[in-house]
Amino acid sequence: MTPVKNSSERSPRADFGVIGLGVMGQSLALNILDHGFSVAAWNREPEGLDRAVAASRGKLQPCAALPALVAALARPRRLLLMITAGPAVDMVLDELAGLLEPGDIVVDGGNSWFEDTQRREAAWKARGLHFVGMGVSGGEEGARRGPSLMPGGSPEAYAELAPVLEAIAARTEAGLCVTHVGTGGAGHFAKMVHNGLEYADMQLLAEAYHLLGPRGLGLEPPALADVFDGWNRGPLASFLVEISAAIFRRRDPQGAGWLIDAVMDRAEQKGTGRWTVKVALELGVAVPSIAAALDARILSSRRGERLALASSSSARPPVRLEVADVEAALQAAKISVYAQGFDLLASGGAAFGWELDLPELARIWKGGCIIRAQSLDGLRAALERTRGSLLSDPETAVETSRLAPAWRRVVSAAAHSGVPTPSLASALAYVDALTTARLPQNLVQAQRDAFGAHTFQRLDDPAGSSHHVDWLKAEPSQ
Amino acid sequence: MTPVKNSSERSPRADFGVIGLGVMGQSLALNILDHGFSVAAWNREPEGLDRAVAASRGKLQPCAALPALVAALARPRRLLLMITAGPAVDMVLDELAGLLEPGDIVVDGGNSWFEDTQRREAAWKARGLHFVGMGVSGGEEGARRGPSLMPGGSPEAYAELAPVLEAIAARTEAGLCVTHVGTGGAGHFAKMVHNGLEYADMQLLAEAYHLLGPRGLGLEPPALADVFDGWNRGPLASFLVEISAAIFRRRDPQGAGWLIDAVMDRAEQKGTGRWTVKVALELGVAVPSIAAALDARILSSRRGERLALASSSSARPPVRLEVADVEAALQAAKISVYAQGFDLLASGGAAFGWELDLPELARIWKGGCIIRAQSLDGLRAALERTRGSLLSDPETAVETSRLAPAWRRVVSAAAHSGVPTPSLASALAYVDALTTARLPQNLVQAQRDAFGAHTFQRLDDPAGSSHHVDWLKAEPSQ
Repeated sequence: MTPVKNSSERSPRADFGVIGLGVMGQSLALNILDHGFSVAAWNREPEGLDRAVAASRGKLQPCAALPALVAALARPRRLLLMITAGPAVDMVLDELAGLLEPGDIVVDGGNSWFEDTQRREAAWKARGLHFVGMGVSGGEEGARRGPSLMPGGSPEAYAELAPVLEAIAARTEAGLCVTHVGTGGAGHFAKMVHNGLEYADMQLLAEAYHLLGPRGLGLEPPALADVFDGWNRGPLASFLVEISAAIFRRRDPQGAGWLIDAVMDRAEQKGTGRWTVKVALELGVAVPSIAAALDARILSSRRGERLALASSSSARPPVRLEVADVEAALQAAKISVYAQGFDLLASGGAAFGWELDLPELARIWKGGCIIRAQSLDGLRAALERTRGSLLSDPETAVETSRLAPAWRRVVSAAAHSGVPTPSLASALAYVDALTTARLPQNLVQAQRDAFGAHTFQRLDDPAGSSHHVDWLKAEPSQ
Repeated sequence: MTPVKNSSERSPRADFGVIGLGVMGQSLALNILDHGFSVAAWNREPEGLDRAVAASRGKLQPCAALPALVAALARPRRLLLMITAGPAVDMVLDELAGLLEPGDIVVDGGNSWFEDTQRREAAWKARGLHFVGMGVSGGEEGARRGPSLMPGGSPEAYAELAPVLEAIAARTEAGLCVTHVGTGGAGHFAKMVHNGLEYADMQLLAEAYHLLGPRGLGLEPPALADVFDGWNRGPLASFLVEISAAIFRRRDPQGAGWLIDAVMDRAEQKGTGRWTVKVALELGVAVPSIAAALDARILSSRRGERLALASSSSARPPVRLEVADVEAALQAAKISVYAQGFDLLASGGAAFGWELDLPELARIWKGGCIIRAQSLDGLRAALERTRGSLLSDPETAVETSRLAPAWRRVVSAAAHSGVPTPSLASALAYVDALTTARLPQNLVQAQRDAFGAHTFQRLDDPAGSSHHVDWLKAEPSQ
């Protein structure tokens, strides 16, 4: 076991503290060390501490307990918490609060629920301490080499953290992948929506795979890899398309075929994806394609039922479409999905008073994170041109219209052939609804007035008065 | 003002008490009086009490305050609360609890959140009192002439209430539209799902209207009324189809045309529809077509944006389809929607320990309520034949397969022509996903393993072990 310092032999004091040395905590600690900062750390299990110190070639300064870690840090102290979101965070924070001094800063880098972050930030502020809820995206590789960072909290805390965060964040031609997202829980809110977008991006690619693969056009994994590689050189260029191509090329180490064909078709759906849909529901924002991605995972997990039902289901017409149409459909659907996600960000910002800078979020997602994609440049430019929905940007509208015929062919073909494309289809219905001057909800409102006297407004009454009619009573004959 | 009795002149005591004489409370009180029970009532505003007494031709016994009402009732007391759900319910319950005696029963007939009902029922049980959360559907007309009633709570409380509830409930050839749904909050949970189904049913009809009406095939309201009247004589026969036909026949009292064309195309979406989606999310149940109905209302309410976006949107291909195909699509989509809703009921029952009798719920929805429909007979029979998804019933599967080609034509045509059909399309994708043996979520799970080491299972490993591969590392050449 690595010998640990106690607080009496603490010179010089470390620049930064890390609590929790799991995969993400250790990777971020090493990343910070790489950039010339001294780092002290504590981990609940001593083995994790030993492993991290070894991985740092002895540079990481181990501490035996929280008080020792706090004592080892230069002031104002900067501490990063990388532990499992939930009650454990409150437990560690309670202990920390008794050890820290005014002006000290604790960053929660886990996937905490943003309302917990709001609550914690307010409680800490009342004690003169800074609490920063920070979204961290990019997985282990991102954390180690350059993540996308979404810190929320006070501007003062961000100013103290900036030298470290800006050193470790991913760098792209659009700048550093870190920004002060906003006060309170804004950082974790942005990370939550990022993860919801990640769900939808992954589902869109799964639908494309379904349409092109063995149950659609019949392409085998190497051919699929070629298609995805091609897409990765065009407008769809992105981390997820890139890794999909790599996945399709992977041989099965336990068999003669391709590994993707051996992977169980069941995906889990707990956590931030579900939160995104829940918050959208509470804020009254439509995010149908993110919700569809979540539902697709839920339905995938009902595999026993699916196998039984498939055996008694009727044969389906073959899939007929062009690969290029699928590429266009994915491009268009991504516009719709990000319109939904940025709507949610705007609504959350307004509801919680954060004044989120939406183009800036598109910018910091250009590198480090799972949804990094070439198309974020265009989205960012569009968000800079409009205050409303992404779809209200004229250039985006032109692009969507250009892609629409292929998109319609893909969704139509999928419905015709029984290939479920819930995210592609809901994304199309979303755009079609928002670009339709007259929707059929007049019937819904008339029904509500007929059975529940809920009243309706009239199109020709700009004052918006409430009207009520006894719809079901026979009219006098004329 | 009507003179009110005080507790000293209370002979004989009334059979039933009603608190809250709004539209629903008054209608239920009159309904109970019609069946020979004596009813005493209290209302916060004296005017409402006066109005109700007048409407009852003096039969309703007015009480000046809650203590007087409690004193006016025979024991065990049976009281129906018909006030706005929320904190007001707790306030009245707090006062009532101090006035009642062991064995007395209070029924909350409002649209209370079922978890509030769970909490209240448990608290009252601890005091020896009965609390019954009861869903009431059917609007004013249902409440007055025969509603569908969904009471939850103890079997003992139900036994005391049964003579009154069974007297006032709607009657159909399938029996009385009331049953003891289950303990705790089961009744309000069932009502919540009923309302979610109502959202989806209404949205499906709105989509059909969109496809057939002025922005689709071009049918005018009288022609639409004929189509809906025809549907109401076939498998789609239902209250909502019937009132839609009546709505389409209504002339505009303020103009020369049809009233439906003057109604604002904007529908509200607060309350139980939203709750249904929220609970489904928490229970991990997919209800995509109910969620789509909610989202459709949200998008309809963004009317200013829609008008602006529509003006710059490209022209859409004309709608090409047969009216008969739309009828078949609606039939099929309803099967999918009810499969989703009954899944949610089954999951809720399992999660909260209610042992809901699903066929019995289909039975009590045959009359009195907004979703009453001929097709509930078939659904009830199917639910009696299967323990799993509605789709797992062989006869339902055959019917769905028979309707599928027309359904596919409608969803394809709508996507082709830019008519948003989120509920029709999501209902189809739901069936297609649940009847597909191999879904593309193997790609999602491989991506999760590639970027986050989330592991995957193998199809050829029945033990379900977790596997992990470094997907992105180049393989040794062979």
